[in-house]
Amino acid sequence: MHRFKNLFTVPTIKRTPSLARHFTTSPPPILGPTKPDQKPRMVVLGSGWGACRLMKEIDTKLYDIVCVSPRNHMVFTPLLASTCVGTLEFRSVAEPIGRIQPAISKEPGSFFFLANCSAVDTLKKQVHCRTVTDGIQTLNPWDFKISYDKLVIASGAEASTFGIKGVKEHAIFLREVHHAQEIRRKLLLNLMLSDVPGVSEEEKRRLLHIVVVGGGPTGVEFSGELSDFITRDVRQGYAHVKDYIHVTLIEANEILSSFDDRLRTYATSHLTKAGVRLVRGIVKDVHPQKIVLTDGTSVPYGLLVWSTGVGPSPFVQALDVPKSPGGRIGVDEWLRVPSVPDVFAVGDCCGYLESTGKHVLPALAQVAERQGKYMANLLNIIARAGGGRANAAQQIELGESFVYKHLGSMATVGSYKALVDLRQSKETKGLSMAGFVSWVIWRSAYLTRLVSWRNRLYVAVNWATTFVFGRDINRI
Amino acid sequence: MHRFKNLFTVPTIKRTPSLARHFTTSPPPILGPTKPDQKPRMVVLGSGWGACRLMKEIDTKLYDIVCVSPRNHMVFTPLLASTCVGTLEFRSVAEPIGRIQPAISKEPGSFFFLANCSAVDTLKKQVHCRTVTDGIQTLNPWDFKISYDKLVIASGAEASTFGIKGVKEHAIFLREVHHAQEIRRKLLLNLMLSDVPGVSEEEKRRLLHIVVVGGGPTGVEFSGELSDFITRDVRQGYAHVKDYIHVTLIEANEILSSFDDRLRTYATSHLTKAGVRLVRGIVKDVHPQKIVLTDGTSVPYGLLVWSTGVGPSPFVQALDVPKSPGGRIGVDEWLRVPSVPDVFAVGDCCGYLESTGKHVLPALAQVAERQGKYMANLLNIIARAGGGRANAAQQIELGESFVYKHLGSMATVGSYKALVDLRQSKETKGLSMAGFVSWVIWRSAYLTRLVSWRNRLYVAVNWATTFVFGRDINRI
Repeated sequence: MHRFKNLFTVPTIKRTPSLARHFTTSPPPILGPTKPDQKPRMVVLGSGWGACRLMKEIDTKLYDIVCVSPRNHMVFTPLLASTCVGTLEFRSVAEPIGRIQPAISKEPGSFFFLANCSAVDTLKKQVHCRTVTDGIQTLNPWDFKISYDKLVIASGAEASTFGIKGVKEHAIFLREVHHAQEIRRKLLLNLMLSDVPGVSEEEKRRLLHIVVVGGGPTGVEFSGELSDFITRDVRQGYAHVKDYIHVTLIEANEILSSFDDRLRTYATSHLTKAGVRLVRGIVKDVHPQKIVLTDGTSVPYGLLVWSTGVGPSPFVQALDVPKSPGGRIGVDEWLRVPSVPDVFAVGDCCGYLESTGKHVLPALAQVAERQGKYMANLLNIIARAGGGRANAAQQIELGESFVYKHLGSMATVGSYKALVDLRQSKETKGLSMAGFVSWVIWRSAYLTRLVSWRNRLYVAVNWATTFVFGRDINRI
Repeated sequence: MHRFKNLFTVPTIKRTPSLARHFTTSPPPILGPTKPDQKPRMVVLGSGWGACRLMKEIDTKLYDIVCVSPRNHMVFTPLLASTCVGTLEFRSVAEPIGRIQPAISKEPGSFFFLANCSAVDTLKKQVHCRTVTDGIQTLNPWDFKISYDKLVIASGAEASTFGIKGVKEHAIFLREVHHAQEIRRKLLLNLMLSDVPGVSEEEKRRLLHIVVVGGGPTGVEFSGELSDFITRDVRQGYAHVKDYIHVTLIEANEILSSFDDRLRTYATSHLTKAGVRLVRGIVKDVHPQKIVLTDGTSVPYGLLVWSTGVGPSPFVQALDVPKSPGGRIGVDEWLRVPSVPDVFAVGDCCGYLESTGKHVLPALAQVAERQGKYMANLLNIIARAGGGRANAAQQIELGESFVYKHLGSMATVGSYKALVDLRQSKETKGLSMAGFVSWVIWRSAYLTRLVSWRNRLYVAVNWATTFVFGRDINRI
């Protein structure tokens, strides 16, 4: 079911000074350097919050856009947890790139390529790519190159496993639509299998034990959605097995550690009341049907969801540029990669170089989206000042550097309740809320974040039908 | 991507007189015979039109229902073609069994088992089943048995390949939701791959050549939907490759052969105008990237959809009961399998025995649905007369036998146009229509056929958003 590999993870890339990949066969086809009668070409790697906000805001009269990504849509990650249990449909949280920036499918010089970037040749100003063929055996993937005038790396991060054995093989992450699909299919499969003659009591309990590792917003929201699903839909739709299903949330420290104390207490008590077992522990090993904690406890599971944060992807690790603390692509205050001209980075894949004296920003949709917007503005300024072509932007006044202003954090905990922490940082004071009002704010905030009216409509219709008819339990 | 195997196709079953499968290991668990204080148990094999109408109508005060099927939902097959191109969403055409008959998930003696039936032991009155585990490697499927008081086989038919080599490997059928998902993913993949640097003109034409084999209603409707998709959505969303995409419909005889002459002419001229190439030919071989016709023509394709009708499944072939012409399970006028008591059959899996003097009915949703309704009524009569238990129905007056009255045939040809043939058979006269009015009738007819209000709402919302925003082009 792993249809898309994680963005840009080609572990075979060799670290070479030019970052070039050595092609042993005939030279791959190339989308060559732009000619004087063409617009400068901006190549964007990725299709997440940063990339999409950038592509939406960029002035397409100034640039042609070429986007390279293994998926043709953006995922509204804050709503992804809701799709796992059928509260929302998968398509309601996915927005096609071609709808976010129509120029990409219409302008003669703009393209979307369904491909992974394998390397960047910063000397020749080319990116090396390989098409995604998605397991179709009659298609051989092929390599190609794209010349860029400007390159924006927005390829995101990868789920962290902390080197724990078995995580990649047995746990499911919650970062892409296909992850949510896999979770939903497995959850419904286990619900049905546990009802079949011949299943022991012990096996029934195992099949219906859902373990979530990681108590950040994603883990908490998923646990909350699950407990809603169990309370309402499993009791109605799977009455025979309703007493066997349980959710355990395992976190090494505190859940929602970035939130206000009061909100954290609220979340803890709410989840506990909803039947979620909160366990403080560190995972040591993951086996096919159980995990083992460092204290020796063995926890059998039927479904294991892993949401312990993110780290740099192999693609980012392989890039031969100075890195930020934590191993991300190092950028300056203008989000440039200072060592290589015409290369920029936004979102989870990048962090401030230590020399800037600034902290690396958290891996949040909010940060990536703001950086994408900033980057569009910056590149528009550069092109308007005549610096759109490769090697033409040395003398241009860039204006203000990127400043991140945190607008608050939000997390839902199920039962129409959410936490909204409006403090700008952990140290300052600010409004913190919990309960139904927060839930309304949270839902509205995300509704207006959704890009298209189509998806806003679908999210509203999904919520309404879930409210009236219950969640969708089709296993397709 | 073949998540669900075709219904009940376990080719390893041996033909033994009792139909029993010999278990070599420890005896599988069993849902044993019903006790006097329990309701009689009706086992239903399948979850298509026949099975679902039966389960919806049966009196659950008289029977416990046990449904065995490899999918937990019913598919609204007449709308399936629309989901391949994003006009409708997959979930809008799938209805969970638990919503069609809520007793199945609530009553202590009623169950839905996600499993395939491998054999029927008509002497012991047991069905032998094996759980579906759907490629999850940490789960071993297990065998179990279910005792029945009444057994209704509604396991459907299988797509015909006419023994042509390569069809199963390279073509996609259009009978289940996962088929439609596979078609959509491949279509969008090919659209994106054809735009990548390095694709020759010839390869581009191949990738974007969609070949449909079979000119029955399904093939015609799918071709019509495709031409709408190309005219509207590909021109907008894939402007670079819009001139390369083509649809060819191959049929050995005439398209829509069961329809009135005038309607057939209309369909032919409409499809031709819409850009669908109609080819009369017989397929000889199917290769990974081309098909070869009997006249030697070689037709390269990027996507091949096979819809040439259905034939008996291996499960039905392996059942040791007298067969109807065409190899279906032979039934009498009351849809009983006369050689074995308490066994009945409805839908595409069964046909009248030659001894009844009646023609085998066509494999249509309409037939299966009417038979399911009839069967529910028949079994209700039997139980009310005290014959609900196994071997207790010999002396009961069954009432009228099943009579099929054809209500007309419908097929859409795209562009908001449909054909409605209201003649009761090919020989009689009746109203025949084409054009926009037919389209409205067609759509309304199917809307009211959908079981739940939820799905009626979703179909309406899907149609409305397709009309306003265009089709969904997310590849998830």
